[in-house]
Amino acid sequence: MALVVQKYGGSSLESAERIRAVAERIVATKKQGNDVVVVCSAMGDTTDELLDLANQVNPVPPAREMDMLLTAGERISNALVAMAIESFGAEAQSFTGSQAGVLTTERHGNARILEVTPARVREALDEGKICIVAGFQGVNPETRSITTLGRGGSDTTAVALAAALDADVCEIYSDVDGVYTADPRIVPNAKKLDKLSFEEMLELAAVGSKILVLRSVEYARAFNVPMRVRSSYSNDPGTLIAGSMEDIPVEEAVLTGVATDKSEAKIAVLGIPDNPGEAAKIFRALADAEINIDMVLQNVSSLVDNTTDITFTCPRSDGPRAVELLKKLQETEGWTNVLYDDQVGKVSLVGAGMKSHPGVTAEFSEALRDVGINIEMFTTSEIRITAVIREGDLDNATRVLHEKFDLGGEEEATVYAGTGR
Amino acid sequence: MALVVQKYGGSSLESAERIRAVAERIVATKKQGNDVVVVCSAMGDTTDELLDLANQVNPVPPAREMDMLLTAGERISNALVAMAIESFGAEAQSFTGSQAGVLTTERHGNARILEVTPARVREALDEGKICIVAGFQGVNPETRSITTLGRGGSDTTAVALAAALDADVCEIYSDVDGVYTADPRIVPNAKKLDKLSFEEMLELAAVGSKILVLRSVEYARAFNVPMRVRSSYSNDPGTLIAGSMEDIPVEEAVLTGVATDKSEAKIAVLGIPDNPGEAAKIFRALADAEINIDMVLQNVSSLVDNTTDITFTCPRSDGPRAVELLKKLQETEGWTNVLYDDQVGKVSLVGAGMKSHPGVTAEFSEALRDVGINIEMFTTSEIRITAVIREGDLDNATRVLHEKFDLGGEEEATVYAGTGR
Repeated sequence: MALVVQKYGGSSLESAERIRAVAERIVATKKQGNDVVVVCSAMGDTTDELLDLANQVNPVPPAREMDMLLTAGERISNALVAMAIESFGAEAQSFTGSQAGVLTTERHGNARILEVTPARVREALDEGKICIVAGFQGVNPETRSITTLGRGGSDTTAVALAAALDADVCEIYSDVDGVYTADPRIVPNAKKLDKLSFEEMLELAAVGSKILVLRSVEYARAFNVPMRVRSSYSNDPGTLIAGSMEDIPVEEAVLTGVATDKSEAKIAVLGIPDNPGEAAKIFRALADAEINIDMVLQNVSSLVDNTTDITFTCPRSDGPRAVELLKKLQETEGWTNVLYDDQVGKVSLVGAGMKSHPGVTAEFSEALRDVGINIEMFTTSEIRITAVIREGDLDNATRVLHEKFDLGGEEEATVYAGTGR
Repeated sequence: MALVVQKYGGSSLESAERIRAVAERIVATKKQGNDVVVVCSAMGDTTDELLDLANQVNPVPPAREMDMLLTAGERISNALVAMAIESFGAEAQSFTGSQAGVLTTERHGNARILEVTPARVREALDEGKICIVAGFQGVNPETRSITTLGRGGSDTTAVALAAALDADVCEIYSDVDGVYTADPRIVPNAKKLDKLSFEEMLELAAVGSKILVLRSVEYARAFNVPMRVRSSYSNDPGTLIAGSMEDIPVEEAVLTGVATDKSEAKIAVLGIPDNPGEAAKIFRALADAEINIDMVLQNVSSLVDNTTDITFTCPRSDGPRAVELLKKLQETEGWTNVLYDDQVGKVSLVGAGMKSHPGVTAEFSEALRDVGINIEMFTTSEIRITAVIREGDLDNATRVLHEKFDLGGEEEATVYAGTGR
């Protein structure tokens, strides 16, 4: 008998009908002889609707109350899923994050899981019940106040519970049926992958794949919890994410896929005096404002005036704030200019196979050159190559790289309605 | 400095705009130098919408999950009220029923309050915060599962908190600005009462006044918590409910008002053998089915066949179930018939003044006789007279009694939009 943790996203729970479909799947898993723990997100657009109400009553809502508000969404979906399960003849019990022992830091709106002590969940499992745990929420053990885990929190709840319960697998259900070699809306013959290592998935998540949140994959890797990405609309086994890249025999290591990302902007700070500590001023200011920077490029110093330029990318949503901040610094620091560009796109090639094939970087840049696409920034890791290009070139670059590295299948990929990939 | 508990109903919180208006009132109360604890119901129709969803996923939803579902409604309104308060420059903290120490029996959907241990609320008050407590919900101290208090639960939460905190007053806000001598939609010159004793309010609540739930008034009387009924749409001081009828000097005791009730049905069981224990069979069967009976009338035994008839009233919503039950018993017990009548109405006159004016019952029945209204059932308590009449006669009877006992004012009563009185 296996212990299976299943996580269902909001789009899988957007109506009473969908909730019943999910419940039927959960009961089927139980009837196959498994212990089942389910983590649910809030139904459909509930979270957005609550955020909207909050903004109407207070444009700067206090974080503690925001958590109290938003966690109501998961309580609703969880209770409804538990009810639906009982209507299919199985026993269910729902738990809040606090009841399930999800202990977090005190930071409202973006708490981190400290520990999961699921004694009550274990007890209910032993009584033969299906346990439904509210995702995205926890409780701070000292203040006893309710917290939320921030973006992708429900995935993290599921993985953390799976780790604490020593589950056999953590299945993440959404409206896509697995991890593909590329976005099938851009590359029609993109192929679903059967298996990936944690590292490969981490790289994909880091460069724009929306399927899994980086944080949940990091957690899964740390506790070695196998994850499976599946669709709640089909019975496809999906994609398994498990094991280390180190365990993949060199001959079998392949390229995993091409990821695309339109969510970043590029900022260039020009005419920086080339002294030690100048770059640190920029990155400290951004860090203090909690703006994450992704790629960074520093030009060689100009021989004429001994100044340099620094170019970096950050989330587009933080872009205007970052520029405002740097424009202020520009005045005191005497930089020449701060330039903002949000018409960029990021294309990445990921795969453990890269390690054993040294020519990949060259082939990557040649492929883009051959179709006249200019690379504006370029970085590589052990198993990833990323280029920043014009946003308008992104789809074409994706198709060209997918073709060049022969990642496609013979059939067209299935794209589900409303896919959020 | 006084400690004020304020309770706001769903209609006072139906939109972001109304929530901001309520928050402004709360902050004003705080700025007058009071400590303030607020109990909120769920926004507008939230509870009905959640009930509807529950029925869609499971026509017989399990009670425990129903409580988990419904309590989300109060968490949402509470968090929003707390946010709105902060936007007016005061500090607020919201508490779930469990966090506020509302300990209840285990009975899901209709739990009773065992004890309120508001240590965390007290602590927050001492820090100068306005405390927002979710109404209608509690926690069972043994199972730690979340419970709800049933109909009118938020009023009861407010009164119980007021008692535990030794508050100076418990203000109940809705869309009506006080207790009237009659329903102003029926009697245009109905007068708002400034003050009532607990006993008078209990009698009014028992015979159809919807302003306060019987249970909350019983709790307030037991712990001697003064209640004030007010409108969240006006600054009228409303009606104070405090003190015992015993404390009202005889000369000042007056008649309080006329209450009407269309929510009951009449059931008659005919041809019951007139033996000891026969009536008990009826009432035991109804009690086991959790059907509350209100008025009961047993005819004198027939000399011909030594049988009797029993007539009683019960909530119309339970009527069909009660009849089904009694029809089954009829077969085994050999009664002649079970008759059902849901076209009845109940009109009551309430007031401490009745005690010192022995002619009131006679005048009551004469007033109805004079306009040709037939009394079908009749009961009296120390300070109340109730008659069951045809539903179609109810409004006329109300006006006639209000006039006869000179209860009206000189002006027309204000009726607010959407008044639920």
